[in-house]
Amino acid sequence: MRPSGRNLSDMRPISIETGVMGHAEGSCLIRCGNTHVLCSATIEENPPRFLKGTGLGWVTAEYGMLPRATNTRNRREAASGKQSGRTQEIQRLIGRSLRAGVDRVALGERQITIDCDVIQADGGTRCASITGGWVALRLAVNKLLKAGAIVSDPIIDHVAAVSCGIYAGQPVLDLDYAEDSEAGTDGNFVLTGAGKLIEVQMSAEGATFSRDEMGQLLDLAEAGMTQLVAAQKAAVA
Amino acid sequence: MRPSGRNLSDMRPISIETGVMGHAEGSCLIRCGNTHVLCSATIEENPPRFLKGTGLGWVTAEYGMLPRATNTRNRREAASGKQSGRTQEIQRLIGRSLRAGVDRVALGERQITIDCDVIQADGGTRCASITGGWVALRLAVNKLLKAGAIVSDPIIDHVAAVSCGIYAGQPVLDLDYAEDSEAGTDGNFVLTGAGKLIEVQMSAEGATFSRDEMGQLLDLAEAGMTQLVAAQKAAVA
Amino acid sequence: MRPSGRNLSDMRPISIETGVMGHAEGSCLIRCGNTHVLCSATIEENPPRFLKGTGLGWVTAEYGMLPRATNTRNRREAASGKQSGRTQEIQRLIGRSLRAGVDRVALGERQITIDCDVIQADGGTRCASITGGWVALRLAVNKLLKAGAIVSDPIIDHVAAVSCGIYAGQPVLDLDYAEDSEAGTDGNFVLTGAGKLIEVQMSAEGATFSRDEMGQLLDLAEAGMTQLVAAQKAAVA
Amino acid sequence: MRPSGRNLSDMRPISIETGVMGHAEGSCLIRCGNTHVLCSATIEENPPRFLKGTGLGWVTAEYGMLPRATNTRNRREAASGKQSGRTQEIQRLIGRSLRAGVDRVALGERQITIDCDVIQADGGTRCASITGGWVALRLAVNKLLKAGAIVSDPIIDHVAAVSCGIYAGQPVLDLDYAEDSEAGTDGNFVLTGAGKLIEVQMSAEGATFSRDEMGQLLDLAEAGMTQLVAAQKAAVA
Amino acid sequence: MRPSGRNLSDMRPISIETGVMGHAEGSCLIRCGNTHVLCSATIEENPPRFLKGTGLGWVTAEYGMLPRATNTRNRREAASGKQSGRTQEIQRLIGRSLRAGVDRVALGERQITIDCDVIQADGGTRCASITGGWVALRLAVNKLLKAGAIVSDPIIDHVAAVSCGIYAGQPVLDLDYAEDSEAGTDGNFVLTGAGKLIEVQMSAEGATFSRDEMGQLLDLAEAGMTQLVAAQKAAVA
Amino acid sequence: MRPSGRNLSDMRPISIETGVMGHAEGSCLIRCGNTHVLCSATIEENPPRFLKGTGLGWVTAEYGMLPRATNTRNRREAASGKQSGRTQEIQRLIGRSLRAGVDRVALGERQITIDCDVIQADGGTRCASITGGWVALRLAVNKLLKAGAIVSDPIIDHVAAVSCGIYAGQPVLDLDYAEDSEAGTDGNFVLTGAGKLIEVQMSAEGATFSRDEMGQLLDLAEAGMTQLVAAQKAAVA
Repeated sequence: MRPSGRNLSDMRPISIETGVMGHAEGSCLIRCGNTHVLCSATIEENPPRFLKGTGLGWVTAEYGMLPRATNTRNRREAASGKQSGRTQEIQRLIGRSLRAGVDRVALGERQITIDCDVIQADGGTRCASITGGWVALRLAVNKLLKAGAIVSDPIIDHVAAVSCGIYAGQPVLDLDYAEDSEAGTDGNFVLTGAGKLIEVQMSAEGATFSRDEMGQLLDLAEAGMTQLVAAQKAAVA
Repeated sequence: MRPSGRNLSDMRPISIETGVMGHAEGSCLIRCGNTHVLCSATIEENPPRFLKGTGLGWVTAEYGMLPRATNTRNRREAASGKQSGRTQEIQRLIGRSLRAGVDRVALGERQITIDCDVIQADGGTRCASITGGWVALRLAVNKLLKAGAIVSDPIIDHVAAVSCGIYAGQPVLDLDYAEDSEAGTDGNFVLTGAGKLIEVQMSAEGATFSRDEMGQLLDLAEAGMTQLVAAQKAAVA
Repeated sequence: MRPSGRNLSDMRPISIETGVMGHAEGSCLIRCGNTHVLCSATIEENPPRFLKGTGLGWVTAEYGMLPRATNTRNRREAASGKQSGRTQEIQRLIGRSLRAGVDRVALGERQITIDCDVIQADGGTRCASITGGWVALRLAVNKLLKAGAIVSDPIIDHVAAVSCGIYAGQPVLDLDYAEDSEAGTDGNFVLTGAGKLIEVQMSAEGATFSRDEMGQLLDLAEAGMTQLVAAQKAAVA
Repeated sequence: MRPSGRNLSDMRPISIETGVMGHAEGSCLIRCGNTHVLCSATIEENPPRFLKGTGLGWVTAEYGMLPRATNTRNRREAASGKQSGRTQEIQRLIGRSLRAGVDRVALGERQITIDCDVIQADGGTRCASITGGWVALRLAVNKLLKAGAIVSDPIIDHVAAVSCGIYAGQPVLDLDYAEDSEAGTDGNFVLTGAGKLIEVQMSAEGATFSRDEMGQLLDLAEAGMTQLVAAQKAAVA
Repeated sequence: MRPSGRNLSDMRPISIETGVMGHAEGSCLIRCGNTHVLCSATIEENPPRFLKGTGLGWVTAEYGMLPRATNTRNRREAASGKQSGRTQEIQRLIGRSLRAGVDRVALGERQITIDCDVIQADGGTRCASITGGWVALRLAVNKLLKAGAIVSDPIIDHVAAVSCGIYAGQPVLDLDYAEDSEAGTDGNFVLTGAGKLIEVQMSAEGATFSRDEMGQLLDLAEAGMTQLVAAQKAAVA
Repeated sequence: MRPSGRNLSDMRPISIETGVMGHAEGSCLIRCGNTHVLCSATIEENPPRFLKGTGLGWVTAEYGMLPRATNTRNRREAASGKQSGRTQEIQRLIGRSLRAGVDRVALGERQITIDCDVIQADGGTRCASITGGWVALRLAVNKLLKAGAIVSDPIIDHVAAVSCGIYAGQPVLDLDYAEDSEAGTDGNFVLTGAGKLIEVQMSAEGATFSRDEMGQLLDLAEAGMTQLVAAQKAAVA
């Protein structure tokens, strides 16, 4: 009954290829089905002004989409002269999510910027960005540890994300675009490897949902996390 | 134990004064404690291009904050030349939330714009904007009904919002700024008068939360809705 | 013969409510008939670069209008990405006018920013902003004096403003929007409490005027000042 | 006692050279002492939207300054991405002033844009722009008349402008930069050939002035107009 | 003597993988050594205004670089709010170059937009964009031909580009970044498959060059073209 | 056969008038036929950040065009809020070209900005800007030498530029607008007084050219240089 023929609780195949951007301190190309996102991590030893003297580190994120990542071409944000509200909302979410998995004291007074650029979009780009962004972050932090720049690992746990929604009256895991554009209710769930919640964003465009439905979607998300964390582990091994 | 001396499940006093912007089709000044927001509704019979020929209406929102609504002065967004990511995120939320309470067929091919401008901020400005924005919308729709421009009421139910969070380890209702800036986890909950959920946005800046905590905050939010709907009813009576 | 039924030399009722923006060092809501403006004063001890080392203070102003302050909705300047020429012209006028009533040596190396945001517009918003802005400034300076941050009062005199114009061939005081949009010639007059002139801006959109007419308008403006200064005195008492 | 050695009521030498921009329908280089402004007029038969169907014409203006027109280099507005408040204020003044000398019915549904670009600045650039802008306008309208595109002359009278101020306690005519930067009070006066007033803008940066002083400056301005109109007549002969 | 150990007339290995952006009408990932560029072609049947009614087609291009395509992170142009002069210069070059290989009559009134996004930069990104952009264009045009939307092939010949320069006193082919940043003189050469020139851009930052040197670089470019065209042919076969 | 009646290798008459912008350290109005450009040089002793501590000087350029320099009015870039790609491309070319004629060590840690503003355009504005810009630069450097601020002359040689193209099948020198808009192939050539090349930019909008044609255009450019350098010499004598 799903357009892709998947079962209700099936995720799309996940692959994470690392080292795809040679200049970055960490990078990967994450593919969640037909959603492909390039993630890179940049370490800047010269921290932003608000960190100076605090001893704390910072993780931030930027998000973009190639103009033809989508079915019809979107105007290039650099050409239109500003990032859309959607772009800003997503990059703020990615940054907040990843910070929740980092011990800012252990990271020390430096900033790591995660760039997530969508090469091909088929729903769930913000979730793929978080999951892939964590891999890039992990690899960059590994470099810092190996170089002795930091002594204790600032990464507390895995951070990954998945979307779920009510599609054709049924709770489904890992919405693709065909489902996402039809779903009455959908949500993005960011969790840790240990299953704690970092962000829950549920929304019903022009509709409403119940606490029961919310619970069902959370159940699916928790199930999906196992696969995401496994893919992250395999990638950074 | 709350800075304001309130009990854990106490809301701040709510007042909604209507008719404060004489030119608007609907308007109110909503006060949730020391958070004060001016809300106005503008009906535009000439709909945006994407509606043309669909027979459907649209509700959208814009959000702003006076430079000195806050403890220290914020730069005026008109002077800096762009709306911040936070502003855009909030106004998108307000628009989505109010649309969930409106039958777009019954509204017909017209747009209603809700402007929410924060005069004084003490936490919860986006929630106050949704709650007050609904009042402005209700009043504007009443005008359309009275004028015979539409025949059946497009407003399905009340829409209101409240924030809750874990403050000092306890779930508390209706966070003020002192609590919001200290809360590990907080969320914004948009509900209908009938208690259905429209949006749930929970976030843990640099921390995590459990499903149990999520449930406790939802319980508080549902309790708060009763008071918000009562204040809306009194205002539009 | 005036749309409002007022006599030629009648001003609209003035009310000035102070303390309406709790975070500001000084604030008021000024109502000149149906023109309502929120004015706040912000003291910044860290002066702009051009003041450093001069020992002189600075007073500046910013002006805005809520989108639905007017009969039809105006596009939000923060959304369009720039302040209009009209906005910039007005805020420059407010700043210059208020500085003329301040001893910059006595103020010392600090900046006071006056924000004037029009809630409802019915003509004369720049004049109401100057008159109300002075009240916010006065209250903020009172705080500095009370705190001992400055020792001698830097405020030299009241500063207030009123518009006059030739409407239907007659010189009239304090134009409302219905008059302003029809007036061949109109002017804005900024005066001190002692009756000295600070700014005179007379303009005849697509028309001309004589020195005699100019004199008649000045006579009206001087008469109006008495009432404005009285309202200011009552507000700050 | 004036830095230039001029008498109190002496204007600087005026020269107006026409035809300096070969593509424009009318153009001139106006020199008021060391203030040099290039003015051009462009006729657009396709009027702006707000004129469509009204039968009325429009005259508008834009103003700019070459980066090194001044003693130190100013940032190019095209590079900084916006026109300053000062620029916008000036171009609005030029447009309003020139429209006051034009019969918009006789002009017909077309727009004339006057571009004023300051090549060298020594005070009084906005006044020189108005005086030179009128010459460019006159020449462009002559072309329309000659081509039979319009039948009756839409230009009602000469329009020109001059600044006056209180310098070192004395009322002086036609301020240059050395005087302008020191003058307590100064004003810009736009008049018609017949001596009627179009705009009066008097301002006292950080000071005040009396009605008597205002009258003295007006007397000087009226005297100066004779020379400006004579220069315009010679230029367009 | 080249940092990479290549001979003077050696190109870097070229690979072109097609079909990498599933939504685009044509796409490829071109790798010229460590310079990797994603190229996509978008067909828009609704042509830009200036084409309407001409019967002619248009090919245009946009260029971007992921923030961490380079050794240190560049600010995202979408965040800084404008495309740099360099970006605009490059995308204008790509568009002009590809148009030279297209019969605009045969293409018909439609636009093809080539997006070139640099994933990893090691010198020669504009040349790789042209070479890869042609492949994306070729694939998109194949779709039009196959669908019968156009009847005769509008692509006249291959278009490809390569850079050459004087490095350490020697003319070298296909500069990488290490060479490019040290080269006194360098040039970009766009040629057709038949060896005709489309664009020659030679520049000597802070230096000069002779006609002889220019000829040597052209010789190298012509030699390089053979390999580029072969790679294009293999890719689109 | 040329629209102007010139022979194939005829340049337009050149005139260079110096000292036209009194505030600038060097300035000229260059006229190449009907192309007129104002060039000024500004010396800034406070160098840009990237020069600090290097001991090297910098020459940069900005380019603009008055709105009515052309046959139809162009939108003012200051009003549209950004410089076009064409503008940026041209000003980067001017800066690079002039730097090639300057010994940055001898110039010392200061910046010279060359502003080129086109008053009237008839083809070849970028070439005229380079030729005139060099005159402004020469005059400004003369001031530094005369003042003893620098001891050895940092100007190595003349720098000038001319365009050539294939018009109606014939190679012609110094294209005017009528030729430029019809030429299949055209190029801009920047040379030193000694005949060395600084920049070669050849382009064939929608066409191609051969090495032979390229050589013929270079021959013409070299011939033209003699006249340009003679005009520069006369101007700065």
